[in-house]
Amino acid sequence: MSWQNNLRSVSPYIAGEQPELTDIIKLNTNENPYPPTSVAQLFNERYKTKNLRLYPSTDAKSLRKKLADYHHLEVEQVIIGNGSDEVLSLSFLTFFNSQSPLLMPDITYSFYPIYCELYRIPFQKVPVDDDFKVLIKDYCIENGGIVIANPDAPTALALNLKDIEEILKKNQNSIVLINEAYIDFGGETCLPLLKKYDNLVVVQTFSKSRSLAGIRLGVAYGSAEAISHLYDVKNSFNSYPIDSLAQIIGEASLMDEHYFQKNIQKIIKTREVFKDNLVNLGFEVTDSKANFVFVHHPKVKAEELFKALYEAKIIVRHWNQPRIDDWLRITIGTNKEMNKVIEFLKGYLKKNEEIDEWKK
Amino acid sequence: MSWQNNLRSVSPYIAGEQPELTDIIKLNTNENPYPPTSVAQLFNERYKTKNLRLYPSTDAKSLRKKLADYHHLEVEQVIIGNGSDEVLSLSFLTFFNSQSPLLMPDITYSFYPIYCELYRIPFQKVPVDDDFKVLIKDYCIENGGIVIANPDAPTALALNLKDIEEILKKNQNSIVLINEAYIDFGGETCLPLLKKYDNLVVVQTFSKSRSLAGIRLGVAYGSAEAISHLYDVKNSFNSYPIDSLAQIIGEASLMDEHYFQKNIQKIIKTREVFKDNLVNLGFEVTDSKANFVFVHHPKVKAEELFKALYEAKIIVRHWNQPRIDDWLRITIGTNKEMNKVIEFLKGYLKKNEEIDEWKK
Repeated sequence: MSWQNNLRSVSPYIAGEQPELTDIIKLNTNENPYPPTSVAQLFNERYKTKNLRLYPSTDAKSLRKKLADYHHLEVEQVIIGNGSDEVLSLSFLTFFNSQSPLLMPDITYSFYPIYCELYRIPFQKVPVDDDFKVLIKDYCIENGGIVIANPDAPTALALNLKDIEEILKKNQNSIVLINEAYIDFGGETCLPLLKKYDNLVVVQTFSKSRSLAGIRLGVAYGSAEAISHLYDVKNSFNSYPIDSLAQIIGEASLMDEHYFQKNIQKIIKTREVFKDNLVNLGFEVTDSKANFVFVHHPKVKAEELFKALYEAKIIVRHWNQPRIDDWLRITIGTNKEMNKVIEFLKGYLKKNEEIDEWKK
Repeated sequence: MSWQNNLRSVSPYIAGEQPELTDIIKLNTNENPYPPTSVAQLFNERYKTKNLRLYPSTDAKSLRKKLADYHHLEVEQVIIGNGSDEVLSLSFLTFFNSQSPLLMPDITYSFYPIYCELYRIPFQKVPVDDDFKVLIKDYCIENGGIVIANPDAPTALALNLKDIEEILKKNQNSIVLINEAYIDFGGETCLPLLKKYDNLVVVQTFSKSRSLAGIRLGVAYGSAEAISHLYDVKNSFNSYPIDSLAQIIGEASLMDEHYFQKNIQKIIKTREVFKDNLVNLGFEVTDSKANFVFVHHPKVKAEELFKALYEAKIIVRHWNQPRIDDWLRITIGTNKEMNKVIEFLKGYLKKNEEIDEWKK
């Protein structure tokens, strides 16, 4: 016997690298290339840090109300957490307390199985089809809950509302958790379905479309009943998860709708041009509705390309995982950054072709 | 069957009220009456919020290093969390994964049993003696871990290092978690015992002595091995728990040792004067080593006094709980605030005495 016998054994999630080099093109963690609204700067500068001696609002009351108004929901339908990872984690702990398996696509956010291991939640991976599409009919089996990212990471593919409604309808005895971290980049939010389904919980984040990954704000929306249970678990975990500065910066973000929309449109435009350029270079690219693309080249091993990009100080994401080990996920940066990526790829593919020719 | 069947049932912690009134004397959540160092204001004003588009360091690297240096520890012996409540919560999840009960005093921080319920950890409350003292010999029974607050809340009593070492020695097969949230107000930290015991984990916070409850920074110190396990669980829960602003404000706090020490001494001085005044009014007061006092008056029901104080806009803390339902916990505020409390109590006790006289 030793204290080591009482440890919870887990295999933790490994987040995308945050390299300390400064002259890199960082396209590996789906951060927004543009800053948050300047209102955030203003609010932060004006904040009197003497107020930090006091605890923050336990439910980020004012921000919570503003989010409810923004989405035409009741305040009781909203809960804010310390980034969407915390919201997801506490949702798993709250809602998936079943002997039946939680269902999730086999290709999706790799944190889900880690939450399951942490909380001892049985789960079952449901294979997507050869085009990485989620097949609705596969989610009509016995389960203790369902989690789907829409759009998905890393595939970047989105589901339509009709498909999500079908899943909700067929699973009224399970919570269906839809992770909409990337929804603002072209997907269709399922928040309107909250009017009809009390088993729907939708998670969103300030990290991507609102350029606030550094301040850690995630949100879940659901029926007032579902959210009240999530609050009970949150209040059994941490009374004050959102610090006072994060609360005011979140509010600042909501005040500048014009900048928010402009920022998103810029990224979508860059994505579409980047996709066209990739296709012209012979890449296969999924129909991205996110701020990243998922790509594959028939003539180049993804792992080799990943390393070549890394050496050129362009950091993207690659997983050594069945079905996607020949694919790369590339975040959409600025136009200038994406042009540099295309230039690099052109040179790389040309050199590769020459070597192939020479081998013949 | 319904989705409600799969819910985790919990009875959440209820934090001390954060009233929205402005002209109150707020002595109910052990906040510091003085602001944090002015370096925090400076750092915050200068921060460029454009950097918030990027994720923060997953382990608050720079702050972690500074804390290690401050306490003459290795960086691997330090983990930072989103307030000490998160650090405690993740410590329970990591270390107390046993069939044997976790031991804790019966009178202590009331969040501990709530973590146990959340994570299904068996626990056993060990009665303190009639003077609220923790009896070391009672912790030499079979257990899956031990958690003790030093100084304790709400009793305000501290243990000495010899007693803590005795517990560590007798329980080398269990993690002994010492919650030092209030240690800077007169207790003796057990951090030096980390040199000898790899089963010791010490939790501290920026919320009390550093006047930073609003920014949510808690810390655990332990052996490099214990902390690495805590990191594995943290990284299975949330990759980025500390936002970028909290990290720089924590660093600002560590840069102003002079202000920090002065602030603590002021509070201790106010506490000692307040205690003397209370004793002169006939109160029983425990030997506080914290930024609050735990008090009882032989002639007045605590609950009635709590209500009378509340009506006078002086908010303190009372628990309807066996053994302490006739006690109040009062945070140490400014001299001016504590003088007002004494003035109120004088008037209240005098009126009470007159009523008693009249009844005869």
